[in-house]
Amino acid sequence: MARTGRRPGPSGTRGQILAAAARCFAAAGYDATSVRRVAADAGVDPALVRRFFGGKEQLFTEVASALIDPAQALAAVTGGPPEAAGERLLRYFLAMLGDAARPGPYLGLVRCAVTSEHAAYLFRQFLAERVLGEIAAELDAGRPELRAALVASQLVGLAVARYAVRLTPLADAGVDELAAWVAPVVQYYLTGTEPVPKEEQS
Amino acid sequence: MARTGRRPGPSGTRGQILAAAARCFAAAGYDATSVRRVAADAGVDPALVRRFFGGKEQLFTEVASALIDPAQALAAVTGGPPEAAGERLLRYFLAMLGDAARPGPYLGLVRCAVTSEHAAYLFRQFLAERVLGEIAAELDAGRPELRAALVASQLVGLAVARYAVRLTPLADAGVDELAAWVAPVVQYYLTGTEPVPKEEQS
Repeated sequence: MARTGRRPGPSGTRGQILAAAARCFAAAGYDATSVRRVAADAGVDPALVRRFFGGKEQLFTEVASALIDPAQALAAVTGGPPEAAGERLLRYFLAMLGDAARPGPYLGLVRCAVTSEHAAYLFRQFLAERVLGEIAAELDAGRPELRAALVASQLVGLAVARYAVRLTPLADAGVDELAAWVAPVVQYYLTGTEPVPKEEQS
Repeated sequence: MARTGRRPGPSGTRGQILAAAARCFAAAGYDATSVRRVAADAGVDPALVRRFFGGKEQLFTEVASALIDPAQALAAVTGGPPEAAGERLLRYFLAMLGDAARPGPYLGLVRCAVTSEHAAYLFRQFLAERVLGEIAAELDAGRPELRAALVASQLVGLAVARYAVRLTPLADAGVDELAAWVAPVVQYYLTGTEPVPKEEQS
């Protein structure tokens, strides 16, 4: 198969280092993971990790980018009729997360973000600048950044409820069933009519 | 003020122990927290913690129950017109989480659940049996357990995105604005027409 000119895939030394980093971040959290530890897990010299990636921050962002490919997420939104963008994005996300019985490395990112201020900052930058910002720019509706963030809130919550907390009805549900229930919500956030806030009667 | 006959509030020794436990679980995660550590944080003897609560498992469930009061969550769903149940439940949840600038102890529960298999199990039992099951029993619609779990997925995701990852548009949004956007989603999960799953064309 022809190479696409993009960065090399998960094979090769670079891919081995990324896979080791994903394992370390997921198992130990962000703060307790070091370049040295990732290098040991990958069976390479720490200097090689630094040459490929710079340092731990970049490594974390690259792991995020390998798991949530910004180009694929954007393609899911733009690659078809706008009225089915919610379903495409949800199905891309569920396919990425994989089998509900064994939580994927994606949960490692959420784990890092809820246990480390700095990882939360890096994850926020990555999501906001490279994923949600790109999606928001494609939305032809008011409050695009808020819409993209609301989509992220539903998808992150689905991942935590299905894969981490493993609430039975969500862990047992098939992809088609989840898509039927949740895709209208993602679609509403992406393209629905902007609601008018009302103040609570107190 | 008259006592309500329910368990004592956060004041008193029992409340001090619960507050100490919430701090320990949030700071160290479930696995690294011990009854001894909670007792030291509360300034009491470990035997007193065991007498009040039994052990670490019950302590964790009591912390969850103090943060997400099953009776209040249920009252939000049932205490008013059914067509506004989504908004009432969402506003109860946002009020419970408090100020977006300083993440409340609720995030400690999510932190425990994503970093400890056993805490995830306890949190799942608590949510399923004492919160979502009660809510599902009140729903006059198909698939009540799945509906309640979908509500939980949106609320947990909102908490993680607004308080842990702190995606700017969600962290900056006011309660009325969030309610305007998200309440229709909670309402849809609670009472919306059951969707018909379709299989993906491949």
